[in-house]
Amino acid sequence: NTGAVHIVGAGPGDPDLLTIKALRLLQRADVILYDRLVSDEILNLARRDADRLYVGKAKSNHAVPQDEIEARLIELAREGKMVVRLKGGDPFVFGRGGEELEALRNANIPVFVCPGVTAATGCAAAANMALTHRARAQAVTFVTGHAKDEADPALDWSALAALKNTLVVYMGVTKAETIASKLIEHGRGRETPVAVVENGTRENQKIVKGSLAELPRLIEAGGIKGPALLVIGEVAALADGETLLEIIGKERAAA
Amino acid sequence: NTGAVHIVGAGPGDPDLLTIKALRLLQRADVILYDRLVSDEILNLARRDADRLYVGKAKSNHAVPQDEIEARLIELAREGKMVVRLKGGDPFVFGRGGEELEALRNANIPVFVCPGVTAATGCAAAANMALTHRARAQAVTFVTGHAKDEADPALDWSALAALKNTLVVYMGVTKAETIASKLIEHGRGRETPVAVVENGTRENQKIVKGSLAELPRLIEAGGIKGPALLVIGEVAALADGETLLEIIGKERAAA
Repeated sequence: NTGAVHIVGAGPGDPDLLTIKALRLLQRADVILYDRLVSDEILNLARRDADRLYVGKAKSNHAVPQDEIEARLIELAREGKMVVRLKGGDPFVFGRGGEELEALRNANIPVFVCPGVTAATGCAAAANMALTHRARAQAVTFVTGHAKDEADPALDWSALAALKNTLVVYMGVTKAETIASKLIEHGRGRETPVAVVENGTRENQKIVKGSLAELPRLIEAGGIKGPALLVIGEVAALADGETLLEIIGKERAAA
Repeated sequence: NTGAVHIVGAGPGDPDLLTIKALRLLQRADVILYDRLVSDEILNLARRDADRLYVGKAKSNHAVPQDEIEARLIELAREGKMVVRLKGGDPFVFGRGGEELEALRNANIPVFVCPGVTAATGCAAAANMALTHRARAQAVTFVTGHAKDEADPALDWSALAALKNTLVVYMGVTKAETIASKLIEHGRGRETPVAVVENGTRENQKIVKGSLAELPRLIEAGGIKGPALLVIGEVAALADGETLLEIIGKERAAA
């Protein structure tokens, strides 16, 4: 009896933003393989006797290699287990869900995908900032700031800068300086509004906002360490959040 | 006693893809204002005695004007009601949620936003097609094919065609011919894979796939009438779904 694998989106952080389907799958799973961005609050919703296997980055900063995760999923399903592969946000938006799906299909394992609220829409709601807006943005693009081997992200900066709409960068904090300078170099205005949403939808959420040119200073002054989402474009002006002036003012008052 | 308005995403169609938070809000609401894309199955999850007000397009094809919807939300909240404004997908992705939020804030009504699974990620999961993929697409862009006054959508085709990643078009069926020819004219390859997901995540879901050049024929032969999502880019080749040849073959066999 072969089991099955469900690749499940855990949403942006707040456990209430799990889907009903994801909750039901979590409560049925024999084994859950989860990533760094999945909180304990969400894992606590699973069956008490389910095995929970962490496959994200360890303190040493080394993640379980992708092929080992895939081999583990296949092995567990072949043991007849009902396996949930739980990923932050949505599995098909920068989640490597597509690769895992292919590996499982190639191994003839029954596999299903349960979508989730992706970080962009979760953080947008948490910041009260629409991603598209009739008067401000007719399109929204998601990119990731995360690149292999510490290289700069290999993105088409010219096309991204030309598309003067909303740009959302997942995992972009460490590359924020590069991202801002590349966009400005390719013609996006220095005054373009930006918002940075750290731990969006969680209790420790923090939002800072400003202009594209001041993005790196904003991240530093705001003490943003990630996980955080960068939102670049006119809609970012609508976000709830502290400006650089407000952050500096508070620091002075506290000093 | 002023009430409050919750602008809530109902997800892509399958009621199981509501978030836990959305379900809870639906079960608490005194009044629900809902759009065309919200199914009866979802409305049935609300309190039996909640008022349900339809504000989408009627058979005559006229929607309740946006300012009337906003006035109604304000009026109901001022009567002390707990109001849910329920929208298909996510309220901040082509949902006009941003406009309603502004109107309510300007009227000093307490207003909250609950995100939902947007159609793009819901349909991607339903079609087993990742929106981003290490080998195929480093970015994904959402646009809408819906334009005011039957005009063609005012999009920057040159930048969209240059960004050779995943392009998702919401409400794009009636403009599919224009969209395909504009993208090809601006340099996107005729052979670029496309997938069309109609009623994604619902029981009557239908998926057809092919090339950008054959998109209009694919929609016609597949009998796609919408609501449907167009996915353009290398990832579309991964989608489950019937090709034009398969559709034509089935028609011949049935004739």
